[in-house]
Amino acid sequence: MLYFETSFPVRYYETDQMAVVHHSNYVRYFETARSMMMESWGMPMHKFEKDYSVLIPILEVYCRYRHPARMGDVLTVSCAIEKVPMARLRIDQKVVNQDGELCAEGYVTLGFIDKDSFHPVRCPEALLNIIEKHINDR
Amino acid sequence: MLYFETSFPVRYYETDQMAVVHHSNYVRYFETARSMMMESWGMPMHKFEKDYSVLIPILEVYCRYRHPARMGDVLTVSCAIEKVPMARLRIDQKVVNQDGELCAEGYVTLGFIDKDSFHPVRCPEALLNIIEKHINDR
Amino acid sequence: MLYFETSFPVRYYETDQMAVVHHSNYVRYFETARSMMMESWGMPMHKFEKDYSVLIPILEVYCRYRHPARMGDVLTVSCAIEKVPMARLRIDQKVVNQDGELCAEGYVTLGFIDKDSFHPVRCPEALLNIIEKHINDR
Amino acid sequence: MLYFETSFPVRYYETDQMAVVHHSNYVRYFETARSMMMESWGMPMHKFEKDYSVLIPILEVYCRYRHPARMGDVLTVSCAIEKVPMARLRIDQKVVNQDGELCAEGYVTLGFIDKDSFHPVRCPEALLNIIEKHINDR
Repeated sequence: MLYFETSFPVRYYETDQMAVVHHSNYVRYFETARSMMMESWGMPMHKFEKDYSVLIPILEVYCRYRHPARMGDVLTVSCAIEKVPMARLRIDQKVVNQDGELCAEGYVTLGFIDKDSFHPVRCPEALLNIIEKHINDR
Repeated sequence: MLYFETSFPVRYYETDQMAVVHHSNYVRYFETARSMMMESWGMPMHKFEKDYSVLIPILEVYCRYRHPARMGDVLTVSCAIEKVPMARLRIDQKVVNQDGELCAEGYVTLGFIDKDSFHPVRCPEALLNIIEKHINDR
Repeated sequence: MLYFETSFPVRYYETDQMAVVHHSNYVRYFETARSMMMESWGMPMHKFEKDYSVLIPILEVYCRYRHPARMGDVLTVSCAIEKVPMARLRIDQKVVNQDGELCAEGYVTLGFIDKDSFHPVRCPEALLNIIEKHINDR
Repeated sequence: MLYFETSFPVRYYETDQMAVVHHSNYVRYFETARSMMMESWGMPMHKFEKDYSVLIPILEVYCRYRHPARMGDVLTVSCAIEKVPMARLRIDQKVVNQDGELCAEGYVTLGFIDKDSFHPVRCPEALLNIIEKHINDR
């Protein structure tokens, strides 16, 4: 399994009037962790488009809320990939607070489309190789 | 089935650098439609807490992205409830653009917890009655 | 003076843990009103770029917070233009709640830059004419 | 002068369809830096309310945009305080990218109000002492 995690504090504007992190922000935390993961591979999302002429749209997102994150929390957000992608890439994600409490878990499914034709394509070789390498490393 | 819909234009800050509405915002559109639905019942979310001492946390959210919404679009966001809630309330949601294209669809599951004890409770009678009435009306 | 206003309800995700609209959202309300104003002129922002090859970046924004907006409020956000723009366009903006209370007021200054060279240009004739017409109408 | 800075990468959802960070997010960056500063003093904003029964509302914000921040940028956001606060605290803020380019600069003015009466009060002694100490340290 490929595993990556990154940590950052809750930001004040992410809270809502229930004094917890608004549920929509976990979807943004998921994305932030994915961006940092691709960055750590030397393949940041924003360069991916240019270098491979492939866009990586979100096809679906699921999130199960377990425990509210609050201002003052430092969250660790993780990405896990179990299967080498073909047409789609599923990433399992978790948000855990500084006390080890699971705040939320879910997954996103990403697709690959040609930048010009907007037709679905296979996962580019370069990305495939990185994921394959990391899955086997663990 | 209980059905409700509301419409509003895409806002510029909701777009991202792919020139489409960022995927996290659909989760916010879902919520906006639910707020308008409760408002239309004379039972706005923010009064619910005070009047019934019950909080309505989001337990899970799922969203499948079909077609990108863009700046200039006017979106119709709908809520549908098929079953009278007991401990949980599931709401099916859709986002459709002005041309009738389905942009996204998904659901949220809501729970009910006592404001003071934070223990799960049943759906308050008043909300139950409204939902039951609307389900039978159709 | 050119004057435009539009109204919309506060959205739940815009509140923060002080149970008021987070201060950053007023800047977004300002923008939303400007978008609706340009839409009302038949010249939506996103078409402006294509039709005139001119981008309209924000140069500065100022906001003075007077009275907190809350969930349940319906806000009226206004734009006022006093002077025909040359290199810059200043728009004065207000956010007022359903009880007529002034929640916030401020202004934004917009520039005009060529889409390709990124050099500053004058306000395009078409926009100038609309603003001039509306200023004189009142 | 009291000076504090913190750094973090741009997040994808913060970009807009011009492929730059949306202007409203600089106001959020300002806040994030202020939160980190108070955290560094052992006096996080969310505890301040509880410990001193004083709220710190934003009275005004100003931002001048100089150079667009983009996905891939790592931003350093600073806070500077020149004067010990009485009824108000002014904080000057800057956003600089990894190449040392000034992206935005501005200020916020904060007030102090009693949590229960909502009346304006003086800056609490504890905060005053910290600011005074830091101003003199430099």
